[in-house]
Amino acid sequence: MPFVNIKITREGATTAQKKLLVAGVTELLSSVLNKNPATTHVIIDEVDTDNWAIAGELVTGRRNRGL
Amino acid sequence: MPFVNIKITREGATTAQKKLLVAGVTELLSSVLNKNPATTHVIIDEVDTDNWAIAGELVTGRRNRGL
Amino acid sequence: MPFVNIKITREGATTAQKKLLVAGVTELLSSVLNKNPATTHVIIDEVDTDNWAIAGELVTGRRNRGL
Amino acid sequence: MPFVNIKITREGATTAQKKLLVAGVTELLSSVLNKNPATTHVIIDEVDTDNWAIAGELVTGRRNRGL
Amino acid sequence: MPFVNIKITREGATTAQKKLLVAGVTELLSSVLNKNPATTHVIIDEVDTDNWAIAGELVTGRRNRGL
Amino acid sequence: MPFVNIKITREGATTAQKKLLVAGVTELLSSVLNKNPATTHVIIDEVDTDNWAIAGELVTGRRNRGL
Repeated sequence: MPFVNIKITREGATTAQKKLLVAGVTELLSSVLNKNPATTHVIIDEVDTDNWAIAGELVTGRRNRGL
Repeated sequence: MPFVNIKITREGATTAQKKLLVAGVTELLSSVLNKNPATTHVIIDEVDTDNWAIAGELVTGRRNRGL
Repeated sequence: MPFVNIKITREGATTAQKKLLVAGVTELLSSVLNKNPATTHVIIDEVDTDNWAIAGELVTGRRNRGL
Repeated sequence: MPFVNIKITREGATTAQKKLLVAGVTELLSSVLNKNPATTHVIIDEVDTDNWAIAGELVTGRRNRGL
Repeated sequence: MPFVNIKITREGATTAQKKLLVAGVTELLSSVLNKNPATTHVIIDEVDTDNWAIAGELVTGRRNRGL
Repeated sequence: MPFVNIKITREGATTAQKKLLVAGVTELLSSVLNKNPATTHVIIDEVDTDNWAIAGELVTGRRNRGL
């Protein structure tokens, strides 16, 4: 029954990577907490770097500075 | 004062359907919990089928298999 | 497959009311968008009135003023 | 360590405005709660006016009525 | 920079299990997407079974029926 | 119309601090984006330190190590 929301910046995650990610999280919830994979949902939110900030600075700016 | 977030896959919900949905949820909160419609907010998130997984599999793949 | 999150203030919603609410939302998603009830999840968050603000004022204060 | 999610309608917020917003929120959490800016994250969600409703009506319709 | 929110029903997850879960998710994001663990946040929400519904029925009722 | 969700660890934020926080965020959205305070909602989630992890480690453990 778990519901997992993964927020990452939109910087080119591929479908192949998403498949690995959702399969891995679902397996983890099954092995650690015995949660039924059939009712496990995972949603990936890809957020524009102009819409995510760390330390008060948009990620776009951080990327431009090499961070 | 309620705040409702409805997440669905992005598979062609029309504006007419969205109108029915938000009106229905707002009415439900008013009739069941006596919540004031004027302060009831509803947000619909439409999520790409490549970004939603059930049972460890992306919905895109499930759709391709007829699920 | 929908996932619905309903946030309300913690002000005494009963289990009977919650049952009506989740059944109603699930039925609405089925009738309007043809969503499968079996994979529809609804989560209710009850938020303390000290942790919810409208117009920059905590709901606790608004309640004390009769709003 | 705070995580802040700001949801607004998608109606033309500029990058300059977003910079002011995330810097201001981060500063506020530092000054009021002594939270470390280095671990403060802010995410802005811009939501289409067809996907946000108040009082059971989509914002698109409200805007058309001058609200 | 990822932010992960895991919602599970409040049914006795132990601190040891939470440690395995957050370590596993963080490792997964690092190995699959090359995300920096230092800026990866994971939040676990434990939701009362009276506040989570599947198929229009509260989990409390489902548990009573052996589901 | 904005909706703001602030997640912090549950470590003793006072009502006075919450008042400053929600007033400040609401003012910021008004001054930067011209958002109407009357429809601005702010919700504060206080998360147990056992339910928040950074770098794959629960905050409880980090606090014990003086971080």
